[in-house]
Amino acid sequence: MRYSKLFGKTSKTAPGDAVAASHKLLWQGGFIRRFTSGRWGFTPLGMRVWLKIYKVIQDEMDKIGCQQLVVPVLHPLEVWKKTNRDEAFGEEMMVVDDHYGNTFVMGATAEGMMVELVKMFSPSYRDLPLEIYQFSSKFRDDKRPRGGLLRVREFMMKDAYSFCATEKQITKSYRKFYNSYFKIAKKLELPVIPVEADSGAIGGSLSHEFLVEGDFGDQTYFVCDKCGYSANIEKCEFQRETLNPGEKVKPFKIIDQPEWVCTMEDNLKHYKEPLWRYLKNVVYKDKKGKIYIASVRGDQDVNEIKLKRALGIDYLEPAADKDLKKIGTRPGYVHSWGVKGVNYIGDLGLAMVKNYIGGQKEDKTDSFNVNYSRDFKYELLADIVDAKGGDKCLNCKGKLKQRKGIEWGHVFKIDCFYTRPQEGYFVDKDGEKKPLWMGSYGIGIERSMAVIVEVHHDGKGIIWPQSVAPYQYHLIGLDLHDQKVKSRAERVYQNLLNKGVEVLFDDREEISAGEKFADADLIGIPCRLVVSKKTKGKIEIKKRKQKKIQLTSFNQLLFA
Amino acid sequence: MRYSKLFGKTSKTAPGDAVAASHKLLWQGGFIRRFTSGRWGFTPLGMRVWLKIYKVIQDEMDKIGCQQLVVPVLHPLEVWKKTNRDEAFGEEMMVVDDHYGNTFVMGATAEGMMVELVKMFSPSYRDLPLEIYQFSSKFRDDKRPRGGLLRVREFMMKDAYSFCATEKQITKSYRKFYNSYFKIAKKLELPVIPVEADSGAIGGSLSHEFLVEGDFGDQTYFVCDKCGYSANIEKCEFQRETLNPGEKVKPFKIIDQPEWVCTMEDNLKHYKEPLWRYLKNVVYKDKKGKIYIASVRGDQDVNEIKLKRALGIDYLEPAADKDLKKIGTRPGYVHSWGVKGVNYIGDLGLAMVKNYIGGQKEDKTDSFNVNYSRDFKYELLADIVDAKGGDKCLNCKGKLKQRKGIEWGHVFKIDCFYTRPQEGYFVDKDGEKKPLWMGSYGIGIERSMAVIVEVHHDGKGIIWPQSVAPYQYHLIGLDLHDQKVKSRAERVYQNLLNKGVEVLFDDREEISAGEKFADADLIGIPCRLVVSKKTKGKIEIKKRKQKKIQLTSFNQLLFA
Repeated sequence: MRYSKLFGKTSKTAPGDAVAASHKLLWQGGFIRRFTSGRWGFTPLGMRVWLKIYKVIQDEMDKIGCQQLVVPVLHPLEVWKKTNRDEAFGEEMMVVDDHYGNTFVMGATAEGMMVELVKMFSPSYRDLPLEIYQFSSKFRDDKRPRGGLLRVREFMMKDAYSFCATEKQITKSYRKFYNSYFKIAKKLELPVIPVEADSGAIGGSLSHEFLVEGDFGDQTYFVCDKCGYSANIEKCEFQRETLNPGEKVKPFKIIDQPEWVCTMEDNLKHYKEPLWRYLKNVVYKDKKGKIYIASVRGDQDVNEIKLKRALGIDYLEPAADKDLKKIGTRPGYVHSWGVKGVNYIGDLGLAMVKNYIGGQKEDKTDSFNVNYSRDFKYELLADIVDAKGGDKCLNCKGKLKQRKGIEWGHVFKIDCFYTRPQEGYFVDKDGEKKPLWMGSYGIGIERSMAVIVEVHHDGKGIIWPQSVAPYQYHLIGLDLHDQKVKSRAERVYQNLLNKGVEVLFDDREEISAGEKFADADLIGIPCRLVVSKKTKGKIEIKKRKQKKIQLTSFNQLLFA
Repeated sequence: MRYSKLFGKTSKTAPGDAVAASHKLLWQGGFIRRFTSGRWGFTPLGMRVWLKIYKVIQDEMDKIGCQQLVVPVLHPLEVWKKTNRDEAFGEEMMVVDDHYGNTFVMGATAEGMMVELVKMFSPSYRDLPLEIYQFSSKFRDDKRPRGGLLRVREFMMKDAYSFCATEKQITKSYRKFYNSYFKIAKKLELPVIPVEADSGAIGGSLSHEFLVEGDFGDQTYFVCDKCGYSANIEKCEFQRETLNPGEKVKPFKIIDQPEWVCTMEDNLKHYKEPLWRYLKNVVYKDKKGKIYIASVRGDQDVNEIKLKRALGIDYLEPAADKDLKKIGTRPGYVHSWGVKGVNYIGDLGLAMVKNYIGGQKEDKTDSFNVNYSRDFKYELLADIVDAKGGDKCLNCKGKLKQRKGIEWGHVFKIDCFYTRPQEGYFVDKDGEKKPLWMGSYGIGIERSMAVIVEVHHDGKGIIWPQSVAPYQYHLIGLDLHDQKVKSRAERVYQNLLNKGVEVLFDDREEISAGEKFADADLIGIPCRLVVSKKTKGKIEIKKRKQKKIQLTSFNQLLFA
């Protein structure tokens, strides 16, 4: 391809809101352009990378015997309703009505549709395990699209699904996809870390996120420095430790407290005791308006996803002031016990501290020397708070290290979460109808592209891995006003094309050498070639990753 | 691929509503399944054909230097509004709101978006012609989805666009795509006929549909038996002939007429004069409620699309009784002249008959010996009616033959229809900003697949063209309970795989030879191979198109 004819050129500046390296570089390299928030177009250069990522994923799926197919982008809402997925996805889900009275969910994931498809062919145990995948446009109405392609509202996803006869079979299939994700990541040159994750709106019993570590990520996760246990913040379990073991349990009392002491910060200022000494209450409500008070230590942060999991519900939102009013209280005055008509739940850590301050805040008083079990007790204590760096691993005595990363892929062991309500059955050996065991496995192309750039770039631009580079060679012609040099450069270009080599030929005459080199570095094709007056009959060759420049002949080049 | 492991099997029966051969065969062959009206899923077998059609189109686009890219599926409504395309597409267009106050059109075509993309890179005349394409999911809320994949509501379209500096350049580019469509059709083994067509909601000055003739089609078109002029019914011009040249113009009068004479049929019954003798009025209204009376001869049918073109408006609908009431009339009583506050328009044929009956129907009277020009006259006479088989060609003295077919592809010369209102400019040699000249070119994958099957099938099933066949060989193993035969069949299968040949291996043990042959014929892979007890060390080979069966060795096979 001649760069002069390529649609979409480099740009010296990036958009003002671009912070992430991939956002800046993909934009400046002329790979992508934004249409509206979270919705991007790909130029021909960007599209070549896009198609190569597609192919890397497709090849690996085909290799493990996964069969490509496709279902409609618009899913009948009823399919989602069968598993309450419409509620679980909530505002992330886009819904559209047609002109004929039908309501559709715009494909955000396709477990439900795949169950419907598989049902149409009435599988028997002989057909299992069945492993299928599709590439199709996905729509997720993300609250905060950001970082160019890092977080978007519309993207192309490879979503694979397995259907099995037994839990043993699904576990094996899950493991197969899990392993294949390492292979795909390796081809894309992405250093991935699988971490245990919450299954979220997808549902199911087990899931792993494949994360790529880096500050560009918005996902917090933990790795045990001893046993290697790793999980993201929504899932990470940890050992609660006794914080004041030497202290004696003291008698409960009501003490005077200045009216201004409301928040944890106020407590700190007033009592000068560490944060874990205070009781904290966070109030939520579900879709029906039912109120939940999550009671934790002052040093703990409620994790909404852990909380939902512990309560076994799909939807929660922070309660508003008017919700508090309904239950007879207001912000800062929520009691750790005794509020009528609400559900209390506490974190496991509540029992690890003696003699709490707080829990029964009134205008001028609060409770003191409060002890869990003795003074208040919940039906449910569960893991409902964020782990923190330095917490103890639940499996061993190791310490959890906190890291940041981004989800690149996600695999889910879903079991019969969809197939039971959707009646996705197979006929087993014994002639009985049984629900299929299911797994689901996703990778987005746009996210992949962004993460590859985050991992593979330097101050000058992108450094594409061979497997997804838009072209293998970036041929720069210099001194092209000189007819002899020009025809030499043209010959090299044609020869490369004839050999079936992917080459981008910077044939622009009016552009300086410096600009051409800068563009080449920015665009990030693995190997740069230069034909100029200086190179005479030879070709200058330089790998994007290296500094070394060599002179070579055309024949040598193809074996370089 | 082992047929035993392939997801999606053949079926002995087709759905009750399946009429079209492609609908029946693709369904029975196990290529497709329906989710909701006009929305289909593809099984792995169907997907292979789908992907091959994609590749045939992609290869040809790449070959002509068209650059692949992609824009979002959701288009900001504002982009469509700039050219009133939302009004022109009307109910075919699906609209969706996100949770953040934005309204989007679900991509039905992408001219507007492509203009926006091109603008982002501020093209100069040096960048032109610019030819780009994408594959992306398209959504059209078709009133009557039918015939399986023949007419759907959701599909994958290759849509290409050219941007040019001059009308001469766009004409050349249009021609290039026009020619490329023949090449694609040839590879898909589709006998296509380009016919002049209305540009419809896409807009522009010239368009051609590439039709495939057949009764499965829903498009009526005409071909001149002499000069070869061809156009579809929405576009086909024809010569209006004088129908009663020998007759003298008679004096206008009002005559008594029984009250029951209202429709053209009533007129026929009462007067026993041919249909062309009566005046017919058809009433429409636009989006704003403005009324248009289309006045034609009794033997003519108003073509709504021709009418819109003649009026230069994007939207019309038949007027309802209440609309007629507003203009002081009712069905059957619309006058050919004199109604206040409406726009009259007549067909060119109005002037070709003397002494009409009708035009001023009252309860017990009507007008008689009515002559256009003398008794009534419109500001506009235009081509607003359907051509009919047997009509005279406008270009020559030939006769128009009426045919049926289906649109497979469509090319549009759009000129500056989008770029002017969207300010899609380029900088010309003279430094001036000028609107880009544009063309647009579409082919749908699903429609292609359906039409290929319509053209290539027999009583037993599909006969896939080599270029899009899901596999090249359909290897049938018979007598597989015999270990020797089984291992021979397995060897042939493995050898073919090792040679990189696409082969579907019917390895099912419990299925009879007859069923396997029937399945092979239904699925339609070009070449059938059989390994059985009878074939001994050889392989039986039969082309799907031919009856001849031969015995061959494995080595000979690959050169067959």
